[in-house]
Amino acid sequence: MEVSLPTKSRTQPSYHHGNLREAALAAARTLLEERGPSFLVVKEIARRLGVSDPALYHHFPNRDALALALIQQGSTELSNILVRAAEKSETGFLGLGEAYVSFAVANPALYRLMFGEGFAITSNAAREASTLRQNIYRLLKDRMDTTKGAPSLHAATFLWSVAHGLAMLLIDKQMHSTDLPTADFTRAVLSLARYGIAGSGQADG
Amino acid sequence: MEVSLPTKSRTQPSYHHGNLREAALAAARTLLEERGPSFLVVKEIARRLGVSDPALYHHFPNRDALALALIQQGSTELSNILVRAAEKSETGFLGLGEAYVSFAVANPALYRLMFGEGFAITSNAAREASTLRQNIYRLLKDRMDTTKGAPSLHAATFLWSVAHGLAMLLIDKQMHSTDLPTADFTRAVLSLARYGIAGSGQADG
Repeated sequence: MEVSLPTKSRTQPSYHHGNLREAALAAARTLLEERGPSFLVVKEIARRLGVSDPALYHHFPNRDALALALIQQGSTELSNILVRAAEKSETGFLGLGEAYVSFAVANPALYRLMFGEGFAITSNAAREASTLRQNIYRLLKDRMDTTKGAPSLHAATFLWSVAHGLAMLLIDKQMHSTDLPTADFTRAVLSLARYGIAGSGQADG
Repeated sequence: MEVSLPTKSRTQPSYHHGNLREAALAAARTLLEERGPSFLVVKEIARRLGVSDPALYHHFPNRDALALALIQQGSTELSNILVRAAEKSETGFLGLGEAYVSFAVANPALYRLMFGEGFAITSNAAREASTLRQNIYRLLKDRMDTTKGAPSLHAATFLWSVAHGLAMLLIDKQMHSTDLPTADFTRAVLSLARYGIAGSGQADG
């Protein structure tokens, strides 16, 4: 014999204070990856969770507040991943770069959000997002420091450019290999940063 | 003695068919660079031009139609710039890369738009934007072909990653040199693609 729950308990679950914030972030992350950074809307999260708009506005007064909380979450995850990659025996740029690109490919819309997509150019939120990106850059640079001497500003910028550019091209499905899995293709492309296209016998310029 | 124009002629100019489209694209480009790709709104363009919404919807039925027209314009400009760069004596990746990055830095929001910012992930418009990007990639790859042999898929992806990644980091004001002008900094970073960080005596890994 089936017991049917009252409708209210299914459509309007009650959340404790901390619970609702966590549930909202999880729902926001799903919405983000489904539709993209420009479609992150607090009202839609409230609708999906079956809670009132004001209940959610209490935690996230607007889209940018919600976006920044997600960026904070993503930055913590990416930092942990990079720290773990640097702790492995095979450190240096290749290991870090592979970990970096894997994170972006696994969380494409979050990664684009972390790079400021959907913020108004001059907003405070855009500046806060930029500061969080700078922390990731410093982590990348410092981890490279500990292995084989500090890279110069040019070299550090170059390496971040390669990793970021490749991540974006893979996210946008702009580039992919027809014969290699993404991880091997990523490694092959990142490897070129070491000896360059001239050193690798590729067409140079 | 001053002659004051009637208010109507200042706030509601009349446009010929082709004129309005061009005027709307120019106004859209200004709005785009002022606020960012997620804030491109047909109604706001109509307001700025002092024309009715339906008059503009006739040309651009929605935000994505307007965005695609801007992307088309940007793709034509960037293609012309790359073709001119390839025609100069100093061709190869460095000249092309510098031209590419300069375009992005001069048109930051347009460049982000060209890379799909503000589109819903699965939209037709996002796919059309991706096709236009692919044309730019082929142009870059083909121009490199004509100078010193075809770069492999890995090398071409690597070079596009460096140029795209650096462009994005510069646009986001994430990286800049304190002692070099942007053009010299760009050249120094792009140069590393040739011999890599190991070949340049930088920290490798």
